[in-house]
Amino acid sequence: DPNLKIFSLNSNHKLAEEIAKVVGVELGKCSVTRFSDGEIQINIEESIRGCDVYVVQPTSAPVNESLMELLIMIDALKRASAKTINIVMPYYGYARQDRKARAREPITAKLVANLIETAGATRVIALDLHAPQIQGFFDIPNDHLMGVPILADYFKKKKFTDDIVIVSPDHGGVTRARKMADRLKAPIAIIDKRRPRPNVAEVMNIVGNIEGKIAILIDDIIDTAGTITLAANALVENGAKEVYACCTHPVLSGPAIERINNSKIKELVVTNSIALPEEKKSDKIVELSIAALLGEAIIRVHEELSVSTLFD
Amino acid sequence: DPNLKIFSLNSNHKLAEEIAKVVGVELGKCSVTRFSDGEIQINIEESIRGCDVYVVQPTSAPVNESLMELLIMIDALKRASAKTINIVMPYYGYARQDRKARAREPITAKLVANLIETAGATRVIALDLHAPQIQGFFDIPNDHLMGVPILADYFKKKKFTDDIVIVSPDHGGVTRARKMADRLKAPIAIIDKRRPRPNVAEVMNIVGNIEGKIAILIDDIIDTAGTITLAANALVENGAKEVYACCTHPVLSGPAIERINNSKIKELVVTNSIALPEEKKSDKIVELSIAALLGEAIIRVHEELSVSTLFD
Ligand SMILES: Nc1ncnc2c1ncn2[C@@H]1O[C@H](COP(=O)(O)O)[C@@H](O)[C@H]1O
Ligand SMILES: Nc1ncnc2c1ncn2[C@@H]1O[C@H](COP(=O)(O)O)[C@@H](O)[C@H]1O
Repeated sequence: DPNLKIFSLNSNHKLAEEIAKVVGVELGKCSVTRFSDGEIQINIEESIRGCDVYVVQPTSAPVNESLMELLIMIDALKRASAKTINIVMPYYGYARQDRKARAREPITAKLVANLIETAGATRVIALDLHAPQIQGFFDIPNDHLMGVPILADYFKKKKFTDDIVIVSPDHGGVTRARKMADRLKAPIAIIDKRRPRPNVAEVMNIVGNIEGKIAILIDDIIDTAGTITLAANALVENGAKEVYACCTHPVLSGPAIERINNSKIKELVVTNSIALPEEKKSDKIVELSIAALLGEAIIRVHEELSVSTLFD
Repeated sequence: DPNLKIFSLNSNHKLAEEIAKVVGVELGKCSVTRFSDGEIQINIEESIRGCDVYVVQPTSAPVNESLMELLIMIDALKRASAKTINIVMPYYGYARQDRKARAREPITAKLVANLIETAGATRVIALDLHAPQIQGFFDIPNDHLMGVPILADYFKKKKFTDDIVIVSPDHGGVTRARKMADRLKAPIAIIDKRRPRPNVAEVMNIVGNIEGKIAILIDDIIDTAGTITLAANALVENGAKEVYACCTHPVLSGPAIERINNSKIKELVVTNSIALPEEKKSDKIVELSIAALLGEAIIRVHEELSVSTLFD
């Protein structure tokens, strides 16, 4: 269909290429560069009048640059008479600032939704939002895909002979661990961090049976990797046979790579929702592609079928 | 008035301090930092409920960081029940992308206005917008201040004994040169660049009499300084006695400082609408403060008087 166009901005060009291949189109021609003073310059080099346009841009680091590229691209597409402007945003920057945890905090995740709508987007395709409530921050249609099936499939193929247990590194992630456990027909466990008294170190209590088992830690985002590496080490100390970790979004900032390399984690399995630059690669990290998931979603949206049932 | 609060974000803290002094208040307490992954974290450390808040943030380089800091701050202020949110934005990033010069270009200056309104600003105080039409990009009140009087006063105080002439470096700046000339009771001249035939170097033709005079070049923005330094050299070659240059907004990106230092410009007079980092300082550059202008504007706005007549 000549009316379906996919454009890539700068944050994950390789993923965009893969998605275009799944959909069976060439990437649209555009250049996203900088003027001498650092302002973003966008040139869309082919007509998109009347087209359904898909823009692939996870708003990962540098988050403010990624987001402004996206907003300016949406503005340009709108003024060039695109029929629909669909944002393929597998990583949603600022998702963790999704509520006022303290007085006078911004709710930047909601601000970002407002900015994307104001710029002129007509639909957003997201993956494993930090809180599913972020869907409600939008007044335009949005599709929320799940990374768990892709992660689960990877572990299924390993055909472990030992018993496995899916572990949530904190209380907030138990629902996610449960979904993973269902797919792997495994039990769950929870790392139950508690501070016995103020100013006393946290205790890593493990709820559930992990002894002699292969433990698979799951989270949505791994950022500085403090929580996940402490959890992995606690699991080994408490008798787990081996520890794997997985997440959808490898933010991996600051000391993350060093912590992972020095931890008891045998393998960290992630998706390519965020492109990993050279300095964030590690022998322990396995990258799985979400291109098929996103490509199928684009095909479905374009055929106006329901995306939500895609990977249930 | 305890209901008037001025906050500074990161782009020009020194200017904000000076403005607060003019207004006679302490700067409001807030911290604008980064999480490990580069996301902006804002903490407003005092109550602003029911207050008229002024946020000082020229959106200069790094422009996308400056703009996102501003938008997130506006969001936080709105949710913390500020009565009014007034943006003091003496430099307006992306102002040059104010129209579609070619097919499928964004109009980022309009996008920025929309983003600021969407975030929740109730008023914008600007200075020498690249195009005065940008005022119309807003549906909230905005005040448009002029830098020319400050620049003109500086040259008046020099009490030149030679004749002076105000020179516009291009056709687009003649109105600005005329305003400056009125204040200095001087004639104007124009650098009339023309390309005689395609692929032939431009010719710098000078319209107006500059021979033996002190020429003062004026522009709104000096960015890479190509135009202004070529103009200065052409003026000297054509018999100007000395050449000064001035502008409101010293963007000074890329080769600007080197070009200025190597040019025939005797002195470049700028305002502090944009903070100059150490590497952009030069013996040739004189910085004038706009703190009084902006401070007075804040006092006027707060007293609900007309700002537009402020420096006519
Ligand atoms: N980029 C970030 N890096 C680290 N923490 C963040 C970030 N953005 C927001 N937060 C904080 O993370 C907390 C929310 O995380 P969570 O409890 O996992 O939903 C809030 O206290 C936020 O202030
Ligand atoms: N940050 C920038 N640096 C250099 N040129 C720009 C910038 N932003 C926009 N432009 C271009 O400058 C031209 C407008 O400048 P002007 O003719 O001086 O109003 C347009 O062609 C823009 O594409």
